[in-house]
Amino acid sequence: MKLVEEHRSFGGRQEVWEHGSSVLNCTMKVGVFLPSKSKSEKCPVLYWLSGLTCTEQNFITKAGAQQWAEKHGIIVVAPDTSPRGEGVANDDAYDMGQGAGFYINATQDPWAKHYQMFDYITEELPNLIEEHFPATSVRGIFGHSMGGHGALICYLKKENFYKSVSAFAPIVAPTQVPWGTKVFTNYLGNNTEDWNEWDSTILLSRSAQKHEILIDQGTSDEFLPQLQPHVLAEEGSKSGHKVTVNMREGYDHSYYFISTFLESHFEYHAQRLKS
Amino acid sequence: MKLVEEHRSFGGRQEVWEHGSSVLNCTMKVGVFLPSKSKSEKCPVLYWLSGLTCTEQNFITKAGAQQWAEKHGIIVVAPDTSPRGEGVANDDAYDMGQGAGFYINATQDPWAKHYQMFDYITEELPNLIEEHFPATSVRGIFGHSMGGHGALICYLKKENFYKSVSAFAPIVAPTQVPWGTKVFTNYLGNNTEDWNEWDSTILLSRSAQKHEILIDQGTSDEFLPQLQPHVLAEEGSKSGHKVTVNMREGYDHSYYFISTFLESHFEYHAQRLKS
Repeated sequence: MKLVEEHRSFGGRQEVWEHGSSVLNCTMKVGVFLPSKSKSEKCPVLYWLSGLTCTEQNFITKAGAQQWAEKHGIIVVAPDTSPRGEGVANDDAYDMGQGAGFYINATQDPWAKHYQMFDYITEELPNLIEEHFPATSVRGIFGHSMGGHGALICYLKKENFYKSVSAFAPIVAPTQVPWGTKVFTNYLGNNTEDWNEWDSTILLSRSAQKHEILIDQGTSDEFLPQLQPHVLAEEGSKSGHKVTVNMREGYDHSYYFISTFLESHFEYHAQRLKS
Repeated sequence: MKLVEEHRSFGGRQEVWEHGSSVLNCTMKVGVFLPSKSKSEKCPVLYWLSGLTCTEQNFITKAGAQQWAEKHGIIVVAPDTSPRGEGVANDDAYDMGQGAGFYINATQDPWAKHYQMFDYITEELPNLIEEHFPATSVRGIFGHSMGGHGALICYLKKENFYKSVSAFAPIVAPTQVPWGTKVFTNYLGNNTEDWNEWDSTILLSRSAQKHEILIDQGTSDEFLPQLQPHVLAEEGSKSGHKVTVNMREGYDHSYYFISTFLESHFEYHAQRLKS
């Protein structure tokens, strides 16, 4: 792993690392915030998954996360949203191809060769982090929009791998909304049975364990029809999970919304990662 | 004034406005954060001046200022760093022309027609803000790098117009460093006597009033030779002003540095704006 950016921030260090990914067959960048506490002891890790069009930069420059990560002594890992590079399949649309990995494992050409984001996020990346940084194997995961969907499917498909999950304005029923059906058709093919493996509402309905999920959602979010967090809340009620959806009056889909409620998500994860 | 962007943020509203400027002869954008308190009463205003290459966006998206502005009930106004547009003189270098107004009034062609940033910041803009928003005439000013220089000269040249001033990594002796001598030669001509009117260390040495100035500076700032805050501190000691320069170990020139110490600058201004 190669250090490409380093800044002191709130007493800790915001770094950006570059590394070859054998899962994705390309070079990837990842933001890593190391709280000052990590100098003397191993710390738990909270993974942040960003939304459509984002790179590893959006969250680390706009969310104000470092102050809360430092306060709670948590390492924050913010990867890129897809494989990248000239040889990686792409699309002119903002919601498919590079910047739009959707955190799933693609099975269709030309996507399958690189778009294995689920395996990258849940296997290769945690292995790298736990090998190269003062990290415990206590993990939480959260994200925004496409990355909220990503956090939910990672948490639900790898039960007990993450201790906590939360999301801002997540896509919770991708098999039912335009963003999801478009990329699932392209990445996974036409068999909708295959799509269900990557839909957090369906995964929640099938889980034998009882889960706890925190979601914040702005009421003025222009993408609300693609997100529909109430669908996950209803499934949670029906099947005995604790899904909390905080509707935030007047907030939109931007980092102004995320930064406002980020402190409460850090508190939520910190409680669970330290228990 | 035309509203071009609006986001709920930390209970208040982060807005961006566009307006015609008769001083600059062009259209300008300005960020305005309105704390929730401003719904029921007029609030003091803190002006933020950004550094080289910035627009009105950098501070409002990266600094995390909204949480502190909301806490203290302060309106924060973040203007662009220069006149803009096709008809406005420009230069290929990042440190001259658009994005590099240096907050002075240019006297030389082709700059004089538009580059009147000092009059814009200290006259036209406060008039607009106090006419169109729930703002009192109690004002503070702060900024970063070129904008730290801007905040210092605005405060020192318009004595008693602003109640408080602070800066992050400011250029304090522009007549002595490459950034300053380059633009002053171009904007003001070759007579170095004319430059002295825009050098905060010289202005401080000439002031009959006693002033208080807060500065934060990272020790790992790559631009330290252009900034030299100790020069202002030494002039302050010599002429009886209170200039505090906090040297911050390991911090660089970025918004990671600014965001870390921004809370303390808001506390500093809030105390003085409310007294």
